[in-house]
Amino acid sequence: MSAADVLLAEISEQPAVLERLLREGDEVAALGRRLAGAPPRIVRLAAHGTSDNAATFGVYAFARLAGWTAIRDSISVPVYDGIRPDARGDVAIGLSQSGATPDVVGWLDAMRAGGALTVAMTNDPGSALAAAAEVVVPLRAGEERSVAATKTYTSELAVLARLAAHAGGTGPALDDDLAATAELMDASIPGLQQAVEPVAEALSWAGRMVLTGRGPEYATAREVALKFTELCQIGAVAMTATDLAHGPVAALDERFPVWVSVAADSALPAVREAVGRVREAGAPLIAAGPAAAEVEGAWALPVPAAPQLVLSPLLSVLPGQLFAVALARAKGLDPGAPRRLRKVTLAR
Amino acid sequence: MSAADVLLAEISEQPAVLERLLREGDEVAALGRRLAGAPPRIVRLAAHGTSDNAATFGVYAFARLAGWTAIRDSISVPVYDGIRPDARGDVAIGLSQSGATPDVVGWLDAMRAGGALTVAMTNDPGSALAAAAEVVVPLRAGEERSVAATKTYTSELAVLARLAAHAGGTGPALDDDLAATAELMDASIPGLQQAVEPVAEALSWAGRMVLTGRGPEYATAREVALKFTELCQIGAVAMTATDLAHGPVAALDERFPVWVSVAADSALPAVREAVGRVREAGAPLIAAGPAAAEVEGAWALPVPAAPQLVLSPLLSVLPGQLFAVALARAKGLDPGAPRRLRKVTLAR
Repeated sequence: MSAADVLLAEISEQPAVLERLLREGDEVAALGRRLAGAPPRIVRLAAHGTSDNAATFGVYAFARLAGWTAIRDSISVPVYDGIRPDARGDVAIGLSQSGATPDVVGWLDAMRAGGALTVAMTNDPGSALAAAAEVVVPLRAGEERSVAATKTYTSELAVLARLAAHAGGTGPALDDDLAATAELMDASIPGLQQAVEPVAEALSWAGRMVLTGRGPEYATAREVALKFTELCQIGAVAMTATDLAHGPVAALDERFPVWVSVAADSALPAVREAVGRVREAGAPLIAAGPAAAEVEGAWALPVPAAPQLVLSPLLSVLPGQLFAVALARAKGLDPGAPRRLRKVTLAR
Repeated sequence: MSAADVLLAEISEQPAVLERLLREGDEVAALGRRLAGAPPRIVRLAAHGTSDNAATFGVYAFARLAGWTAIRDSISVPVYDGIRPDARGDVAIGLSQSGATPDVVGWLDAMRAGGALTVAMTNDPGSALAAAAEVVVPLRAGEERSVAATKTYTSELAVLARLAAHAGGTGPALDDDLAATAELMDASIPGLQQAVEPVAEALSWAGRMVLTGRGPEYATAREVALKFTELCQIGAVAMTATDLAHGPVAALDERFPVWVSVAADSALPAVREAVGRVREAGAPLIAAGPAAAEVEGAWALPVPAAPQLVLSPLLSVLPGQLFAVALARAKGLDPGAPRRLRKVTLAR
């Protein structure tokens, strides 16, 4: 099995991971119910890379499903500056596939010392991060052999959405919708794998790209940008649709493509406005997500609508993951084996 | 005066803007003292583009100078999702050069309705944002004629640092150090303008770049990346030094340069480790900031050490601003007049 085939196998495995989480992941529902009884002041999230992109989703999930303010907290404030924040009444969630990233562990230690309830979301319940936390939520993604994370991302999205929904009192409905979403993912992957090929061939020259979205789809834009940079050596810049219209749209031209991740939500008009200006600039446009077909003048990589809008990113990320593999191949790169990427971040 | 000359004039004007803020900006000190008497639960910051990069600095400034948790809040949660967060006990600061960006105004309205003390930091005290706020802090940057913001950024940094320091009880010392920083900026600009030229000539081919830093210098990395994208049509990706080492370092090669903004602070070892891996990858390396000379194997664009570490970004951003102008010229672009950039963001 080539490295690219391993990566594709892990992308295809994502629906099964979600089903496993629903079958075995009772600790998330229990934690959600516990938090419902004593709502946190704020939910602090800390992570790097793909897990940090999942945390971006978490900000929206906690707002929509529990009505709480969640933040992507600064790691360097406690870890490098030695400032211990007053975290009494807060929930602090560290996310890390390996659970071994030193500064996420250091951040969680500082949060515990500062009075927060500490939670580790990790694929390794025997990790340092798990040991540092009062509550451990296993990601149950199984061994991730590829260096580029895929199933870690979607398992983190699922766990964050479940936690927020069980805290907000809609846990059972969310769980049902998540099971249906896993089925939609499973049914979509083969077709998407075909659909991305001609687009990747047409854009094999791309060295820079803007990825955009708004709300939860901004998390998708960030995660897809990271895959494009890691796997395809692209200068892939993620920004919200409004930030794009704010300035960088001026830099676009026919050699600076834009990927837009779009759902049929309340941010759609803002995304449409930004897309209109992208088109004026003559930039190649790729639209992915449940509302991809509503974006004029773009290569469309649509996915089915999720049963709940907040779950859309689980589907929207699939064309991005698959396109990254196809584009790396079109560029003659080996997408499963980036050259200097270590699996576990021990770098501070 | 060409568009590029207008931009260079505004870059050179930044020290005078800071001096004006210190001379006339009593409302910041008063607000800081008011907050000291009733510390906020959290400080919420919201902005787009350059002002959002200043907000990144604000997260560190409030932590270091006042010990408070500050966050870059989600705008779309209240504005698109219609979720009104419980913001009682919070301070909510909207930042906007023009004060006319609709969704920052909408966010501030929601924060006020949610119980926060609302503050507008804007160049236009007659703007919609100012009208929506209980306290207005003018940026006093004067008319910004260039479409790429420069003096807005440093005036926002100065105002945020002053607010945090006056809240934390070190306002007078910070004000003195800010005055000294303005003098250092003024003395540095002519030499930096010379120093960036050969580096820009050598890198005129660059179409993608990674910008990195840690702590307050991450704000510099974000702001310089935005200038490179807007002015030079570069796919400029900002990430923390740890995020860089985490994955994207695998994508680097001799055609994917890295700009590192570095101060002699507690994050320096982490930055050095990331830089070592960048060097292994063979990527061209440019080091800017007060500790630039300590980065081996890089083009160094050093700036003087600020009297307080937290003020370093005011100096570190200068080589980035000047390099963006020089690189745009080396590419044959007109750096003062990006083609489709509107000065005021009316886009939602």
